[in-house]
Amino acid sequence: MNSPLDKIKPHVRAISAYTLAPLEAPIKINQNENPFGMPTAIKDEVLRRAAAHDWARYPEFVPASLLEKLAAYAGWRADGVMAGNGSNEMIQSVVNAIVGPGVKVVLPEPTFSVYQQVVRVAGGEIVPVSLNEDLTYNYPRLASKIVTSKADLAIICSPNNPTGCTISARDLAAILRNTDAIIVVDQAYLEIGGEDFVALLQEHQNLVILRTFSKAMAMGGLRVGYCLAAPELIREFNKAKMPYSLNFFSMTAAEIALENIHLLQPLVEKMQQERDRLFRELQNFDGWFTPVPSEANFFCVHTKIPPQELFEALHARGILIRNVSSAPMLADCVRISVGTPEENDKLLDSLREILKQR
Amino acid sequence: MNSPLDKIKPHVRAISAYTLAPLEAPIKINQNENPFGMPTAIKDEVLRRAAAHDWARYPEFVPASLLEKLAAYAGWRADGVMAGNGSNEMIQSVVNAIVGPGVKVVLPEPTFSVYQQVVRVAGGEIVPVSLNEDLTYNYPRLASKIVTSKADLAIICSPNNPTGCTISARDLAAILRNTDAIIVVDQAYLEIGGEDFVALLQEHQNLVILRTFSKAMAMGGLRVGYCLAAPELIREFNKAKMPYSLNFFSMTAAEIALENIHLLQPLVEKMQQERDRLFRELQNFDGWFTPVPSEANFFCVHTKIPPQELFEALHARGILIRNVSSAPMLADCVRISVGTPEENDKLLDSLREILKQR
Repeated sequence: MNSPLDKIKPHVRAISAYTLAPLEAPIKINQNENPFGMPTAIKDEVLRRAAAHDWARYPEFVPASLLEKLAAYAGWRADGVMAGNGSNEMIQSVVNAIVGPGVKVVLPEPTFSVYQQVVRVAGGEIVPVSLNEDLTYNYPRLASKIVTSKADLAIICSPNNPTGCTISARDLAAILRNTDAIIVVDQAYLEIGGEDFVALLQEHQNLVILRTFSKAMAMGGLRVGYCLAAPELIREFNKAKMPYSLNFFSMTAAEIALENIHLLQPLVEKMQQERDRLFRELQNFDGWFTPVPSEANFFCVHTKIPPQELFEALHARGILIRNVSSAPMLADCVRISVGTPEENDKLLDSLREILKQR
Repeated sequence: MNSPLDKIKPHVRAISAYTLAPLEAPIKINQNENPFGMPTAIKDEVLRRAAAHDWARYPEFVPASLLEKLAAYAGWRADGVMAGNGSNEMIQSVVNAIVGPGVKVVLPEPTFSVYQQVVRVAGGEIVPVSLNEDLTYNYPRLASKIVTSKADLAIICSPNNPTGCTISARDLAAILRNTDAIIVVDQAYLEIGGEDFVALLQEHQNLVILRTFSKAMAMGGLRVGYCLAAPELIREFNKAKMPYSLNFFSMTAAEIALENIHLLQPLVEKMQQERDRLFRELQNFDGWFTPVPSEANFFCVHTKIPPQELFEALHARGILIRNVSSAPMLADCVRISVGTPEENDKLLDSLREILKQR
């Protein structure tokens, strides 16, 4: 009898399992979350509706009311919207609709690791395109690689996780014009920074935009993502998505968040202010730290303290950041999310302390 | 410029989109849900914890506490459990870890339609195995087809949706012994009926058991499913599953449901009693209706009234059932879920009325 592991696809077995040590800390600035949390008024209304709801019933097959609210919020048509279990599920559905063995997929490097994982499970062939040395997008290299590699798909994260760089609407439009490939732009951090590309959807049927409620919308714990594209594409992506993948509670929370967007907007502005303050302050450490400009609610920071050492020293002081030094081009980097003003102060104090003790 | 639809995999384009008309009715016995709903004591505790929780934070990367509770509940080891967004996501993860173009997958026919959808998106080749004429599993045919087709995977739903038939532990063990294929048994309805196969996991590394909180556990709206298998297989399936796919609210609800299983058990017993009563009563219609024996909380019913006509006549009376007549072997069938005693009485009254008016 052979091992049942022989039935697992070789390219799945070759993937190293994605893990994250379950570390706890009072200050969590390692996952690019909204540090202010969901406004109480929104929580209360969601909980009120959840109490009155019959949990045993499946969610709506097509969440029509949410799709219409998303369309109005984004400025696109409701039949061009798909919603589901976090933008992770949107990535998975798009990739599984397009990618099989031998299909080429252009991915920037470094970028969000889930793209690579999903493409590899589907058997696709990754065509990596490095960022510039300064961790900005290299538009000419990206544009030409999409064409010359004969890729069917490219995924561009803007602002990019973990570097914070963005692509411009002008460069994106040029890419869209010059290729038949489907270009997915993951705009998880859009409300915090980066240009909005919805206006390009009308003209470019090969553009797919992904968004999430996990960042600005303070719903990382509830997993709601959505996808904007031409209705013909949305129809195909839906076939690769599991039915009923968005539970009633998260669906309700997303609708109420959209109805109360005025309560979330001030938190986004605070995140932007704190990002800019933290960026300036991190430059005042005699060259020990060099933050990389970012339009999102996090930065990559080049550090002269070895990344793992810095990670551990901060963790010992109750602060969790992300050590991203194993990613290409980021050997001397950590990623720091923007926290509340108090959390950022504590971070800066801790960094001073750590440097003093060296 | 070609159409972006050309980039969609041909076997995805060939799938007809799964749709369900958004019909409403006071009595919903079309989705095999728990008709009694979630006990209030469980709801209250979940809502209390959700109010105190920070929704902006990602769920735990590994939901260790839930996995341990599931392991204790099922009688298996925690490192042999994966949990996620409904058993749909479990099916998808298992299929995507195993199935690529050309891989053969044995599926009973008729069975739950999601299996077919996921296998087709992955490019697999479906080997259908018909049930017997009386809508029971044909064990010799199933067992021999798994071997002779050289399938890498078979998915057996027990009790089977939509027919309610089951496979025995003895027959399943014989299948497991005689093949290297991975055998997935979907036990979505286990608490309601069918043998528990957990005892077979120890000896048979090629067995994978799927379960859900959507049926007996009254959480269809919250989408929690789990998978039991050898730890080496769970490790591979997790690579094909999206990280953070189980939101904090559904995770909390699942844990509290397990802690309060004594509140759910009486509802399951009521469902079983009502199933048996409804089965007997449906036989008393002078041969107009012939319910198919089922161990789940639904039946297939052969009807001499054309299925769509019966569906519409019941819908006009405020009752939603499922017209399954387009499935293989079910041309004269509808599927009826077991409702509350009052709902079942109303169904029986309506059937009498419909027959009187013919």
